[in-house]
Amino acid sequence: MKLNVTAQDVARLARVSQSAVSRTFTPGASVSEETRNKVMLAAQTLGYRPNALARSLITRRSRIIALVMSYLENQFYPLVIEKLSQKLQKQGYHVLMFISDLDEADAVLTEILQYQVDGIVMASTTLSTALAKTCADAGVPVVLFNRVPDTSALARHSTSSVTSNNYLGGRMVAELLLERGYRRLAFLAGLENSSTNQERERGFNDVLEEAGLAPYRREVGHYSFSGAQEATRKLFCSGPYPDAVFVANDHMAIAAMDVLRLELGLRVPEDVGVVGFDDVPQAAWGSYRLTTVVQSVEDMVSATVDLLHEQMQGEVNSRNVIVPCRIVERDSVRLHPSPDTAKSHQ
Amino acid sequence: MKLNVTAQDVARLARVSQSAVSRTFTPGASVSEETRNKVMLAAQTLGYRPNALARSLITRRSRIIALVMSYLENQFYPLVIEKLSQKLQKQGYHVLMFISDLDEADAVLTEILQYQVDGIVMASTTLSTALAKTCADAGVPVVLFNRVPDTSALARHSTSSVTSNNYLGGRMVAELLLERGYRRLAFLAGLENSSTNQERERGFNDVLEEAGLAPYRREVGHYSFSGAQEATRKLFCSGPYPDAVFVANDHMAIAAMDVLRLELGLRVPEDVGVVGFDDVPQAAWGSYRLTTVVQSVEDMVSATVDLLHEQMQGEVNSRNVIVPCRIVERDSVRLHPSPDTAKSHQ
Repeated sequence: MKLNVTAQDVARLARVSQSAVSRTFTPGASVSEETRNKVMLAAQTLGYRPNALARSLITRRSRIIALVMSYLENQFYPLVIEKLSQKLQKQGYHVLMFISDLDEADAVLTEILQYQVDGIVMASTTLSTALAKTCADAGVPVVLFNRVPDTSALARHSTSSVTSNNYLGGRMVAELLLERGYRRLAFLAGLENSSTNQERERGFNDVLEEAGLAPYRREVGHYSFSGAQEATRKLFCSGPYPDAVFVANDHMAIAAMDVLRLELGLRVPEDVGVVGFDDVPQAAWGSYRLTTVVQSVEDMVSATVDLLHEQMQGEVNSRNVIVPCRIVERDSVRLHPSPDTAKSHQ
Repeated sequence: MKLNVTAQDVARLARVSQSAVSRTFTPGASVSEETRNKVMLAAQTLGYRPNALARSLITRRSRIIALVMSYLENQFYPLVIEKLSQKLQKQGYHVLMFISDLDEADAVLTEILQYQVDGIVMASTTLSTALAKTCADAGVPVVLFNRVPDTSALARHSTSSVTSNNYLGGRMVAELLLERGYRRLAFLAGLENSSTNQERERGFNDVLEEAGLAPYRREVGHYSFSGAQEATRKLFCSGPYPDAVFVANDHMAIAAMDVLRLELGLRVPEDVGVVGFDDVPQAAWGSYRLTTVVQSVEDMVSATVDLLHEQMQGEVNSRNVIVPCRIVERDSVRLHPSPDTAKSHQ
C-alpha cells in the first residue's frame, strides 16, 4: 500500500505551498489552473491520493450524505437515487445507501450517525420525534423526501421536507375525471399512514364533495404491485362497476390496468378511466399510456440539495418545500364525456 | 454538538471495560448479550455515538464499499443496488454511490480512492488497465459486476468479476427458438463493446451455425429504450420479416414488443417470437409476459460480496465467477412449431 506519500511530498515536487495541494483536492476551493496542473502532475507521479476520511476529521465534513430508502419496487425511487447522486456528486458529495424496513428507520439512523455524515435524506419514510431530536443535537440536517414530518411540533421544528403538491394533484385528478363525464369514482389507496397517500386522497375527496359526490368505492393497495392487483379485483367484484379509478401511484396503476384489461376484460378508457401519480418512465410505455400526475424528480432533488446546503451552513429553521405538479394526459382517460354521460347530465 | 462523550465515559457508567464498548459497536465482534445491553443503555443515557470515520483511520477499514453505475434506466440495476445494499448492510458495510458516464469510469475512480473505501463494485462498466493497477497498488479490491475485465493480462490478473453465463444463455435462446419452429432469427444487440452483449450474441450465433443457419438480420439498440424502438423498426422495415427476435436485454425487449404490436400490428408470439435477457420485474407484467433468460440478482450479489471479502482478507488471486442462468417461459414464444413450419421441415 502506498499510504506514505503526503501532501508535503507533493508540494515539494510541484514547488507549491502545502495549502495549494490541499485546495486542489478540496471540491469547490479556489486554485489557479496553473497551480492545479502542477499539483495533479506531481500527485500522479508520486501516486498520492488525499485521504477524505482524515480530512473529514479536521474539517468535520465527511462529504457523505446518507440516503435512507425503504423499498425500491416503485420505479420512482431508482430515479431519485440517480438524480440525487448525480447532483451531489457534481458538488463533491456522495450518497451512502441505507435500506430500511418501513418501521425500522430508527434502527438504521444509529448506524448512519456513526459515519459522521454531513446530512441525511430520508425517502419514502419518516423518523420518530426522538430521532429528529438526536439528529438536531448532533448537528446533522435531515430532509424528508416525498414525505412530510409527523405533526408533532418537535419533529416539524427540526426536520425539513420536500414533497410535490400532493393535495393539489389529488384535486386535479378529480377535476379531470368529472370534466370527462366519469361519475362513479373509486380511490385505490397506497400506504394509509403515508403523507403522500393522505394528501392525494384528501384533494380528490374534497373536489368530489364540492361536486356533491362521494368516493364511489375505496380499497387499499399499500403501494405494492400485488396489493394493487388484489385491490382492483375487490373494487370491481360487483356491479355497477366504478367508471374511473384514481390510483395513488403509477406503480399500482400499471398493476390495476393489467387486471382491468387482461383479467376482467374491461377497456381503458372506454369502460374505466385510470389515473396514476408520479409519471415513472413505465407510465409512458406503449402498453399503458397512463394519464398521470407528474412529480418532477429534478425539481424535488434540487430542492432537497438546496435544503441540505442551507442547513449544513447552519441555517436553523427547517422548511417544508412544496414543488408544483401537473397532469400529463395520455390514453387512460377519455378525451370527451361519453354520449351516455353527457345525456344523463343535460 | 455532543461530540465530547467518549467510549471511556460509557465504559465507566456501564461498569464494563473500554474494549467491551468498542466490541459492542464493531459489527461482527463478539460480546455477550448482557454486556451489550449495559453498554447500549449507558451509551443512550450519555448520547454517545462511536465515530466510524475515526475508527477507520485506526483499523484502516472504512466499512464503505463504492458502487459505480453508469446508468439506471435498465430496471435490472435498481435491483442490484437494493440487494447489494441489503446484503452488505447486514455485515456492517454500506454502499457509497458513484454515477459515471460509460467512458468516464476512470475519472470517478480517483474520487473513490479519496474515501478510503474497503472495496469497489463496478456495475455495467469496466476500468482501464492503468486504473486496475492503481487499485491493486492501493490494496483496494475491485469486482466487476455483469462485465468481465478487458482481455489484457494485467487487468484480468488484478480484477475479479461476476457475470451470469451469458454465452450459455445465448445458446439456450437459439435452441428454444429453433425447437419451436422459428427459422428467420434476428438479433437486437445492446452495447457492442460490452461483454454481456458479445457473449450472448456469440452463444446465439454458435447454435445457429451448428444448425446450418445464420442470423437473419441484426440491428443495434445500445441497451437503450429508444435505441431498441429504432432498431426494431429497422429489423422489420421490409419483408419477409424475421419470425423471431432475440433482444439482448429485457429493457429493450419491452420496447421492441410495443413497437411490434402497437406500431406494426404484429402478434407476439404468433407472428414474431421475442426473447429477452435479465428477467426484470416488468418482464412478468401482464401486458408483456416476456419469455426471457433469468439472471439471478441474488446469486450474483452473493458471489460479489464473497469475492470482496476474500480480497479484503488479502486473497491475491482474482477470480471470474460465472453464475448459472436459465430460461423462464412466459407467452412471447409459441409453445409448439406452427403447422406451416412443421410442414416445411417434414
